[in-house]
Amino acid sequence: MAKTISEGVGKFYQHYPRVAVVVTAHAKGRDNAMAAAWHMPISFSPPLYGVSISPKRFTYQLVVDSREFGVNFLPFEAAELIASVGGSQGQEIDKFHRFNIARDKSVRTAVPILKAAYAAYECRLVDDRVYGDHRLLVGEIEAVHWLKDAFAPDEILDLAKASPVLYLGHELYLTASKDSVRSLDREVYGKC
Amino acid sequence: MAKTISEGVGKFYQHYPRVAVVVTAHAKGRDNAMAAAWHMPISFSPPLYGVSISPKRFTYQLVVDSREFGVNFLPFEAAELIASVGGSQGQEIDKFHRFNIARDKSVRTAVPILKAAYAAYECRLVDDRVYGDHRLLVGEIEAVHWLKDAFAPDEILDLAKASPVLYLGHELYLTASKDSVRSLDREVYGKC
Repeated sequence: MAKTISEGVGKFYQHYPRVAVVVTAHAKGRDNAMAAAWHMPISFSPPLYGVSISPKRFTYQLVVDSREFGVNFLPFEAAELIASVGGSQGQEIDKFHRFNIARDKSVRTAVPILKAAYAAYECRLVDDRVYGDHRLLVGEIEAVHWLKDAFAPDEILDLAKASPVLYLGHELYLTASKDSVRSLDREVYGKC
Repeated sequence: MAKTISEGVGKFYQHYPRVAVVVTAHAKGRDNAMAAAWHMPISFSPPLYGVSISPKRFTYQLVVDSREFGVNFLPFEAAELIASVGGSQGQEIDKFHRFNIARDKSVRTAVPILKAAYAAYECRLVDDRVYGDHRLLVGEIEAVHWLKDAFAPDEILDLAKASPVLYLGHELYLTASKDSVRSLDREVYGKC
């Protein structure tokens, strides 16, 4: 079937789904948590993680002030929490209090780590750069909190133990299909 | 359950799954295609898309030479193709010939657009930046190729029509669970 070609691109959603995370920050006695789907690893050595967020977000101000941020990966059962922090304003309310969000202790930063998360990164900001209407925050991962039982020995998520939250756009969330897993060894397929 | 805390972070995989894409490039009569999972949207206006790749990749050289790249989103049935381009070297072989990869015509750049893709972005390079052991390539999306039939009217992927390829790490691929979709309106949950 022939594809449609759109030039003069407006908002674009074709790249979804993406794992939805909760980005956290703390500065000057204030905490905040926001939902984010625009995030990715950027380097292994040093371990860098990037998040693209609007500078209008309260979380952005906290990150600028503290030069730290957290990235929290929640199980699908906690998807409502992502929608809750995504639909509320940290400048107006304390989301941790309002949504009764439990935490673990952070070790290298002061960022909130969500107890409900199966994994979380404590990041120290190493770059903050304007790209269009967003800021790309790049952080060095200084500590990884992870529920070891939710991961296979090779540190891959064990889908029988934890289901990731995928965001599809327009308020739709889903998880990964654990029955669909296929092992496709690139060394084999690269020689086909 | 208490989490394990790892400091002195090496390679990190907890953030998977991520949609696996094929990044394409063309320069000086050479084409290439590589598998990538480290990619994300960076801005709506202008529409910017980022890909983090190793500068050792042949694709990186083609992008530097041409200042263009393509991002191709393939259906789960084509996951082997991702493993194939991921496991072979473009400096040594013409992957398009070897793997018999069909293409659509690009309109704003010379990057290969994969016919098997349900969506693809033609990007013009606007930034190329070193972060650790990778380069972050940021491109402005100049054209979107998409199989309109595979998307709902709001441009969200219709999972009954196309299944995305998710990469879990260590050669494991899976798709999204279309039966798990939940609509969680942030406006509602933000007020709970």
